[in-house]
Amino acid sequence: MINAKTVKKIPFGGDYNPEQWDEETRKNDMKMLPQADIDILTLNVFSWAKLQPSEEEYDFSDLDRIMDMAEDAKMNVCLATATATHPAWMARKYPDVLRVDLDGRKRRFGARQNSCPNSPTYRKYSVLLAKKIAERYGNRKSVLAYHISNEYGGLCYCENCEKAFRLWLKNKYKTIQKLNEAWNSSFWGHTYYDWEDIQVPMNTSERWPVNRTSCQIQTIDYYRFQSDSLLECYRLEADVLKSVSPQIPVTTNLMGTYPELDYHKWAPYMDFISWDNYPSPDDPYTRVALNHEVMRGCKREIPFALMEQTPSVTNWQPYNSLKRPCVMRLQSYQAIAHGADTVMFFQMHRSRGCCEKFHGAVIDHYARTDTRVFKETAQLGSELKKLGAKFLGSVQKPQVAVLFDWNCMWGITFSAGPSVDFDYTSEVFKYYDAFAKQNIPVDVISPEQSLDSYSIVAAPALYMLNEKTAASIEEFVRKGGTFITTCMSGMADENDLVTTEGYPGRLRKVCGLWVEETDALLPGHTNTLKTVSDSGIDGEYPAAILCDIIHPETAQTVAVYASDFYAQTPAVCKNKFGEGEVWYIGAAVPKDNTKFLQKLASFTTAKHGIKSIVEPQEGIEATKRIAKDGTAFVFILNHSDSKKTVEFDFSGTELLGGLNVSKKMELNAKDVAIIEVRK
Amino acid sequence: MINAKTVKKIPFGGDYNPEQWDEETRKNDMKMLPQADIDILTLNVFSWAKLQPSEEEYDFSDLDRIMDMAEDAKMNVCLATATATHPAWMARKYPDVLRVDLDGRKRRFGARQNSCPNSPTYRKYSVLLAKKIAERYGNRKSVLAYHISNEYGGLCYCENCEKAFRLWLKNKYKTIQKLNEAWNSSFWGHTYYDWEDIQVPMNTSERWPVNRTSCQIQTIDYYRFQSDSLLECYRLEADVLKSVSPQIPVTTNLMGTYPELDYHKWAPYMDFISWDNYPSPDDPYTRVALNHEVMRGCKREIPFALMEQTPSVTNWQPYNSLKRPCVMRLQSYQAIAHGADTVMFFQMHRSRGCCEKFHGAVIDHYARTDTRVFKETAQLGSELKKLGAKFLGSVQKPQVAVLFDWNCMWGITFSAGPSVDFDYTSEVFKYYDAFAKQNIPVDVISPEQSLDSYSIVAAPALYMLNEKTAASIEEFVRKGGTFITTCMSGMADENDLVTTEGYPGRLRKVCGLWVEETDALLPGHTNTLKTVSDSGIDGEYPAAILCDIIHPETAQTVAVYASDFYAQTPAVCKNKFGEGEVWYIGAAVPKDNTKFLQKLASFTTAKHGIKSIVEPQEGIEATKRIAKDGTAFVFILNHSDSKKTVEFDFSGTELLGGLNVSKKMELNAKDVAIIEVRK
Amino acid sequence: MINAKTVKKIPFGGDYNPEQWDEETRKNDMKMLPQADIDILTLNVFSWAKLQPSEEEYDFSDLDRIMDMAEDAKMNVCLATATATHPAWMARKYPDVLRVDLDGRKRRFGARQNSCPNSPTYRKYSVLLAKKIAERYGNRKSVLAYHISNEYGGLCYCENCEKAFRLWLKNKYKTIQKLNEAWNSSFWGHTYYDWEDIQVPMNTSERWPVNRTSCQIQTIDYYRFQSDSLLECYRLEADVLKSVSPQIPVTTNLMGTYPELDYHKWAPYMDFISWDNYPSPDDPYTRVALNHEVMRGCKREIPFALMEQTPSVTNWQPYNSLKRPCVMRLQSYQAIAHGADTVMFFQMHRSRGCCEKFHGAVIDHYARTDTRVFKETAQLGSELKKLGAKFLGSVQKPQVAVLFDWNCMWGITFSAGPSVDFDYTSEVFKYYDAFAKQNIPVDVISPEQSLDSYSIVAAPALYMLNEKTAASIEEFVRKGGTFITTCMSGMADENDLVTTEGYPGRLRKVCGLWVEETDALLPGHTNTLKTVSDSGIDGEYPAAILCDIIHPETAQTVAVYASDFYAQTPAVCKNKFGEGEVWYIGAAVPKDNTKFLQKLASFTTAKHGIKSIVEPQEGIEATKRIAKDGTAFVFILNHSDSKKTVEFDFSGTELLGGLNVSKKMELNAKDVAIIEVRK
Repeated sequence: MINAKTVKKIPFGGDYNPEQWDEETRKNDMKMLPQADIDILTLNVFSWAKLQPSEEEYDFSDLDRIMDMAEDAKMNVCLATATATHPAWMARKYPDVLRVDLDGRKRRFGARQNSCPNSPTYRKYSVLLAKKIAERYGNRKSVLAYHISNEYGGLCYCENCEKAFRLWLKNKYKTIQKLNEAWNSSFWGHTYYDWEDIQVPMNTSERWPVNRTSCQIQTIDYYRFQSDSLLECYRLEADVLKSVSPQIPVTTNLMGTYPELDYHKWAPYMDFISWDNYPSPDDPYTRVALNHEVMRGCKREIPFALMEQTPSVTNWQPYNSLKRPCVMRLQSYQAIAHGADTVMFFQMHRSRGCCEKFHGAVIDHYARTDTRVFKETAQLGSELKKLGAKFLGSVQKPQVAVLFDWNCMWGITFSAGPSVDFDYTSEVFKYYDAFAKQNIPVDVISPEQSLDSYSIVAAPALYMLNEKTAASIEEFVRKGGTFITTCMSGMADENDLVTTEGYPGRLRKVCGLWVEETDALLPGHTNTLKTVSDSGIDGEYPAAILCDIIHPETAQTVAVYASDFYAQTPAVCKNKFGEGEVWYIGAAVPKDNTKFLQKLASFTTAKHGIKSIVEPQEGIEATKRIAKDGTAFVFILNHSDSKKTVEFDFSGTELLGGLNVSKKMELNAKDVAIIEVRK
Repeated sequence: MINAKTVKKIPFGGDYNPEQWDEETRKNDMKMLPQADIDILTLNVFSWAKLQPSEEEYDFSDLDRIMDMAEDAKMNVCLATATATHPAWMARKYPDVLRVDLDGRKRRFGARQNSCPNSPTYRKYSVLLAKKIAERYGNRKSVLAYHISNEYGGLCYCENCEKAFRLWLKNKYKTIQKLNEAWNSSFWGHTYYDWEDIQVPMNTSERWPVNRTSCQIQTIDYYRFQSDSLLECYRLEADVLKSVSPQIPVTTNLMGTYPELDYHKWAPYMDFISWDNYPSPDDPYTRVALNHEVMRGCKREIPFALMEQTPSVTNWQPYNSLKRPCVMRLQSYQAIAHGADTVMFFQMHRSRGCCEKFHGAVIDHYARTDTRVFKETAQLGSELKKLGAKFLGSVQKPQVAVLFDWNCMWGITFSAGPSVDFDYTSEVFKYYDAFAKQNIPVDVISPEQSLDSYSIVAAPALYMLNEKTAASIEEFVRKGGTFITTCMSGMADENDLVTTEGYPGRLRKVCGLWVEETDALLPGHTNTLKTVSDSGIDGEYPAAILCDIIHPETAQTVAVYASDFYAQTPAVCKNKFGEGEVWYIGAAVPKDNTKFLQKLASFTTAKHGIKSIVEPQEGIEATKRIAKDGTAFVFILNHSDSKKTVEFDFSGTELLGGLNVSKKMELNAKDVAIIEVRK
Repeated sequence: MINAKTVKKIPFGGDYNPEQWDEETRKNDMKMLPQADIDILTLNVFSWAKLQPSEEEYDFSDLDRIMDMAEDAKMNVCLATATATHPAWMARKYPDVLRVDLDGRKRRFGARQNSCPNSPTYRKYSVLLAKKIAERYGNRKSVLAYHISNEYGGLCYCENCEKAFRLWLKNKYKTIQKLNEAWNSSFWGHTYYDWEDIQVPMNTSERWPVNRTSCQIQTIDYYRFQSDSLLECYRLEADVLKSVSPQIPVTTNLMGTYPELDYHKWAPYMDFISWDNYPSPDDPYTRVALNHEVMRGCKREIPFALMEQTPSVTNWQPYNSLKRPCVMRLQSYQAIAHGADTVMFFQMHRSRGCCEKFHGAVIDHYARTDTRVFKETAQLGSELKKLGAKFLGSVQKPQVAVLFDWNCMWGITFSAGPSVDFDYTSEVFKYYDAFAKQNIPVDVISPEQSLDSYSIVAAPALYMLNEKTAASIEEFVRKGGTFITTCMSGMADENDLVTTEGYPGRLRKVCGLWVEETDALLPGHTNTLKTVSDSGIDGEYPAAILCDIIHPETAQTVAVYASDFYAQTPAVCKNKFGEGEVWYIGAAVPKDNTKFLQKLASFTTAKHGIKSIVEPQEGIEATKRIAKDGTAFVFILNHSDSKKTVEFDFSGTELLGGLNVSKKMELNAKDVAIIEVRK
């Protein structure tokens, strides 16, 4: 969590940009925010331009005042290193800080998160600034954590990146011959003779819009390299911060299933995970939950920080609807329910100008405490204050895991064929959603993580995997686990070379089958999964997008296709392997009809004796956090628009209302309950 | 109007490009055109390449011949300065004339309206050419007006523009500190230290497709600057023309609600407004009328010129349908009805090659006088000849004004949030349309113009306004006027800094209410405006796109929302202020159901005793032009496909048929009546 | 055909890329492929990088081994010159080989078919490589043909191309004055003074997305020039190959109605036509047939080669469905039915990496002979072996021709107006389809080809034509032919200058009518073609997209429009001219309702006594190939999903089953019959 040593309640607050405000406004803000029980401010996110007005000159006087002011108001501080936007003078003097885009265009000064990760200038001055900040503020008690840069992301295609890419490749492949093999470069006559021959894969070389490329692995390696490059920037800052003030934890704010960075490689270098939660108005609640779980799964042994959410409205979506009353509170508790130990907003005071002027804030342009948004914030602040340290540090302990992997995402995203409708994150979501709707706790983790603690592991579209992961899965099943996987799994090795051993390649043995072909359905077309008797999930269910044609080897058929030339051939198979079993789902299910997966989730969890936290029903979400002393806290969230009676098999104290509950309780629309379970 | 001194009837004719034709064709054209009573030719629009075949050389011999030929055929001339396309040699020798586009690409020679407005070469040679033309032809009686360049527009993002932009900004903001404040540049760390730091806002700096930017005011200022830069080009030519032949009026052809130029800033430098009317086949007639009114509103004291329209068909739309029989005539009279004193076409003779070869013309590729198009043209020419000077110089005198402002258009177009569906011009159109459908005369004017002569002023989406406009509106209402405004009004000052005094900011006092939040509705969603009793506009009406949540202060509630969490809260308010009142419409109405606005228009005009020119009915448009001697001319246009009986409260002489009419008359489908009202 | 001297059966095989495979895999492939009776391999397509690892060095050792291996396996070879992708070292050392794209961006190394056709480096080294290949392998008996480069296409906009374009134009127009006239360059002031003024028409000069340009003829000439430039590259290689080994025929693989090359200009330099057939899963069978016929029509005196098709699945379409069982066989015979003398695939062994890793192959990643695809391939191989030389070299002799012309395609594609929905190839397809559905043999030929052997010639949308073609059509009709043409025909001369003699210009006399105007219908709108009595095609049929307004001169009216302001005016006319007659169809018919055209096809063929090969019915296609000795082979293909009884008026031997048939036979779904007709 954000800072286990000093924090005694859920920190509540968020981004504050006093640089944009005059003295009077700042003072007024410091009076208003405590009225909402706000006690933490994220400061200094975009201040580089002010802190270093020229190459030679640093000026911390305003930040000093801001820090004093925050401390005077009894606020804790999440202190940013201000390196998310380089200053204008730097762009003018050292163009190497400017990125080149996918179309090969050199960027000019503008926007944000705009620095080339391989710019020597950026690296030099960002680290120097971090150092100065640590030296100046690292001994302030108010500083709970460092917030390095901001929402890392974006790719650069400049000459410096090209040179660094060649080194990265050299480090990975050692010889140009090995690279040629891994990249299958004799395809289309791309043989490389020298590292200097290698180009960054951009729209003027190997790629073309949208997400197409002639050489998938080159683009995948480029994404890996760029993620690593930004991680290096992060680590350089983290190292210098640690060297000066090792007691202060470091983080940066991640973005859920954000497709441009492999967060699993970042997590080891973050003292705690923090992330920014900006759902669309029409995202289902389980989609938001998936993001929380992906983030929690990066570092599941400790709680994460909800670093940003809007108290009301975003500005960048096409239709920026208001969060309905109670929704901000509900989503705040949803974060906590999934493992957050902070509730933080972007932002404290709404900007007057530029592109976020219509992004919601705790304090509106018209600074009043009687707005709906301020009042809802204050109500939540008051509740969090009352909850105190109750479940701080507690964690989830699911028996079910869903695998999520950026390599598979990239492999499928950039693939030419079989179907543009087959989207990696959507497929993962369908399986996560099926368990989550049953109120079964789920970890969403990297394939690299240990599977030891699980009974069920689902790995939809595990397109590429290395030998270690394959062995880990085999071991998991052998010991009694249930493994679930799907079409498009096991197709390729970690360098996107397709198996020659029959799909699903490294998973073939454990799945007990061979996939001969994969059919892509035209838009609007479906097939039907028709179960054979005694499958435990009897019925007929729609299939869509892709249909594998399967030859069971040791597996038995659970369902067959009902139509097309492969009618009556196996569509879903189950294979006993060691003490465990593997389900292979050969087709995708339609986004709007995932009943098959819910049946599958019910059936497999029942078999392992995994119980729903509360009785499943539409719109009711439940999670469980367990403290070090074993105390369990059950969170029940009513995402629906009507009052619900929720049933469960325990009793305890509902912490928000303070009442005892047993076996069941009523929950209003959009309301939440937190039950400390009686042991 | 085009030339009050010399013109004794409505000039009829248009663009003619004899450069494209041989001697024989020209001669034949000069025989054919008079058969359609054509008496004015716009000449020389694209002739720079011919007039100046190299840097040192000018050759007016062909233009001399053309001018002689026109005069021999008794034609007047609207003489263009030919500066809309620089010659090929200039592009090759002086690349500074070539623009850089939004993506940062240097343009090469090609297309038209292609010169950088801040190119020293372009400015030097365009002015020199204008001077030579004035010197050579300025004493010809046939020259009724100068037509400077052609359809100015487009933006350039080159280095010369960047330098000029910095000067423009320096002139506006004086110090870099003031710019930093106005641009709220501490947002995302954009602080500028020096004017040299400032970049043009393009897709490689602050902007990204479509219409998005990280810094709205930077883009708005760039649009202002580019409009001013082209205006400077225009003025440089106008000045030299005036210096040589001050008796000839100058103009350039504008384009209605064209989004790239602030025509309100251009109008003072134009002796008369002229514009090009190219409706789409499915534009409602009131949309065409709005364009006329925006143009007329730029200089409402004198008639404007209809400089271009197609006699039949365009070439650049996806589906270029033929104008149905009578439609060209109807649209010609519609222009006159709204204040035009010319009827002019693009063009006289259809080009054989290049992209306008399928654009309609009076004389087709196959040059015959028995085509439908020629015959319709000739019929109109004959009518205009008979009408003579009847209503030349007469003007409209509406009591209703609708405000139209390019700054508000840009502010809303480039805004991030709240909804991409909220389009400025569409919102203005909805209000204009509501009055126009009642056959109420309407001025469409700039917020900078005096409101003294109006009883009702509607200002939809008056997003940004300065103190002067706010004061002008207050004064207008105080004296008894009815002011109508909507959601998204008063949000920002003239530099797009959002008010901190509660929306609608500078309009809050006069509106008597405070808007706390604005909800964006997802596509397809609506709410309902439900009036409270005695509102005068009782009923239930759909609302869409945006819904304000309103706190009336001195205002009273006229309608509430019927659904969502803000059901029963005020949606429409009315505020008494001084002797007048203000209507605040908190929501947008759907494009396809604007009944609420029509009720509002009826109600407010009735209250002020403003009467419909003729009884409203579907498809019937009516306007009134008033001569200096007070004679009123009522134009009635039947845009529908069926015969209509039109009722009114006056009698007079119908000028096209020559018959007396009283109280009512029949009007065929697509027909028009012009009634000189008996005093 | 591919090699009449040496080939004694239909060659069966296709692309094989052993560069991508190790020794063991190669050996195994050589064992597997003969099991499918594969006897020809296309080798060396993408091997430049391996053959010439640096500027100075050539290494044929691996290709030697590959050739030996193929010969050891009794395979014939279609030997590619490997010049479709330049090596990486060449791109680095000689950037002139890299293209510049339509947006003006210099390409970097990557993708394929990526060399500038006017690059001196590319030309030098591609010819040198071809020479070395011919010298080394030209005496091998196994080499049936040379395959020059691969799927030529794409355009370059670099400086070298610009220079070459100016020379090309100079050669065509001789003087800049003549170019100015042909290009109508006084339009928009584009007069050129010097060849140096001329720019390539790209998105930074004359063009803008998609397919728009200010100067159509400039873009059309650029397409002609680029097609010629690539053809020069082809010819340079062909010449050197011929000079070394004149006995080996040369070809390159074309792509049907591919819009970027004028294949009619290529055909004379190809010893035989070969092409790559990649239909979309939802293409109607007649659309595939059209492509075959366009290809055959390029060189109709000899059979063509089916150079590529996928045995199962593509990778580059959005939805890559499997070819259903029997479909690959059916499409293979469809190629033969239309005149192919080879059945070849891309490819023999599925790639493991890069963008074609999911493209189907005879041998899958998992190399087995018991896959559906391998088994279907082997079945076909076995059948072809049995068929032997039966109809090798036989040709079609249709009495009906449809004209297809790349100039017309470009003229209509780049036209501004009248309707974006009017697509050249779609219009040609509608007319081809109407005859093909009647099982009438059709040649699809260039307007430059002789019409002597036909009774009926259809030329839909013959937008531009030269005097020679006009004369050829007149002569054809005069002698008794039936000519069918449509709206948008005869509009322009060969340089896109529109006629001044009344549309359809050079066809006006033969059509006996004058088109005054052409109306573009808004999407979703239709009109009706209503025949007058005794037309022979009585009925009412929908019209769409465009409607001509027609004045018959010598023609008689066959059908009138039923609605709109031109209701009751002629829509379809028939004109007697000499001994023949001309049908003018003034409107387009909707894509999904072409009954009018089928009636027209029946009526006109009946009149000429042209009989269907077999009785038409839905899904049944029939073609006839005639051997030199007069023996006729009728191919009947059942594209439907049900068994059909097919009726005809001959008897003979069905070659696949070996049975005698007479007058009728049954044909299973997706099955094919080949009947050697009894004389």
